[in-house]
Amino acid sequence: MDKKPIGVFDSGIGGLTVLKEIMEQLPGEDIVYFGDTARIPYGTRSKEVVIKYFFQSVRFLLTKGIKAIVVACNTASALAMEEAQKEFDIPIIGVIEPGAKAAVAATKNSIIGVIGTEGTINSNAYQSTIRKLLPSAEIIGIPCPLFVPIVEEGWESTDVAYITAKKYLLELKEHNVDSLVLGCTHYPPLRYTIQKVLGDNVTLVNPAYETAKAAKRVLQDMNLISGRLEGGKCDYFVSDDPEKFKRIGGNILRRQITSIEKVEIENL
Amino acid sequence: MDKKPIGVFDSGIGGLTVLKEIMEQLPGEDIVYFGDTARIPYGTRSKEVVIKYFFQSVRFLLTKGIKAIVVACNTASALAMEEAQKEFDIPIIGVIEPGAKAAVAATKNSIIGVIGTEGTINSNAYQSTIRKLLPSAEIIGIPCPLFVPIVEEGWESTDVAYITAKKYLLELKEHNVDSLVLGCTHYPPLRYTIQKVLGDNVTLVNPAYETAKAAKRVLQDMNLISGRLEGGKCDYFVSDDPEKFKRIGGNILRRQITSIEKVEIENL
Repeated sequence: MDKKPIGVFDSGIGGLTVLKEIMEQLPGEDIVYFGDTARIPYGTRSKEVVIKYFFQSVRFLLTKGIKAIVVACNTASALAMEEAQKEFDIPIIGVIEPGAKAAVAATKNSIIGVIGTEGTINSNAYQSTIRKLLPSAEIIGIPCPLFVPIVEEGWESTDVAYITAKKYLLELKEHNVDSLVLGCTHYPPLRYTIQKVLGDNVTLVNPAYETAKAAKRVLQDMNLISGRLEGGKCDYFVSDDPEKFKRIGGNILRRQITSIEKVEIENL
Repeated sequence: MDKKPIGVFDSGIGGLTVLKEIMEQLPGEDIVYFGDTARIPYGTRSKEVVIKYFFQSVRFLLTKGIKAIVVACNTASALAMEEAQKEFDIPIIGVIEPGAKAAVAATKNSIIGVIGTEGTINSNAYQSTIRKLLPSAEIIGIPCPLFVPIVEEGWESTDVAYITAKKYLLELKEHNVDSLVLGCTHYPPLRYTIQKVLGDNVTLVNPAYETAKAAKRVLQDMNLISGRLEGGKCDYFVSDDPEKFKRIGGNILRRQITSIEKVEIENL
């Protein structure tokens, strides 16, 4: 048993959907969350820059004495996991593999869709992980850059969201996709609109939920569980304005963010 | 007369619309363009971070021996101009004042609209500059975060653009705005859609064009013009992937980008 905290990383605020799942599935664990809000979004950056920013974030989390890291950011999971696992001597759990596994488990016709940021889709990370698990799969990846600002505007149930989703997802319909990975932590609020466009026969996979399950399994297998059943606390750190994070983050988590601090990580 | 280059700064690629106007109005000037593409977008960042990033960018441009700086970025012009003019001993021309002047010149009913990123609108920079010039003005500022990804998708003439514009601009119509500042360098491609929503009686002001005119006037007044009538060249520097910049930038400028280099500016 190990009472040290779990580190949770995201490029900003979207990763709080993963954090929320972890809190629900592992209520006895202490957590240190770092959101690299000064350098958001990672989705449009080159692999080289994403690796650099992610490594700096991991180095910061290590100063907090964490026992494992959950990478709640699709772009960092897609572009920097392999390098990070070589560089750091600590269990690192990303969102890609749990999401890919759930999509493969859900599909019946082996035609799987993946939506996410440009960085995530162009990295082919979900696609190649799915292919390893199900070599016969036909996989259609679609970057949907408008979805993040639509969710941030709170427009997920408007006609703008519906028409945008129709435009982005047309190809998935034409290919008869029956299982779709929501490969960006911002997308879950859009699931009703997406389901309306694609119809009820398509299973939507939420990697946030799957990742929390995977993290729990890894901690149990390595005997790193705290042993407490409740009362875990979470300390938050961000690289830009804590006030905005507090406000939006509190809404996502449905609980108040009390302990939050701004930190400099550019020279780590 | 002064043959040193003009420095042009943007947080990324949008500022190329300003650069293009400068090249057309000052064809004999050499230019050094810096796009802080690794840290785009500035529009959602806090004032403190924008000032820090902008100062680092100015320090970089100063290493290239420039004679003046044009700040082609609305967010940096809005949040960091005053501080920069105190810190650096060189003429600095932003986009806010030229845009505000043109809007005041165009209005007949003194009801003026401003659209831009969250950072630009919430900074009140256009609003307070317009108010100084025309104290009786009624000014309506609307942040339009979906417009940038719409333009980047090439969707500026689609139904998504039209419905989004109707949603954002409704308030401007209700207030009878007759002059509108396109306060983000990404917006000019949306001008036909915006005009369709607002009707022909509204004058759209493009600060890119106005800023190039202002830069020319400042250089002439300070006797800093190169004296050449043509043949100016432009060297490009970016903080992330030059290939993407070369491709998209070439489209915006309608000329090939040949001299481009990636630079590190985080420790300047």
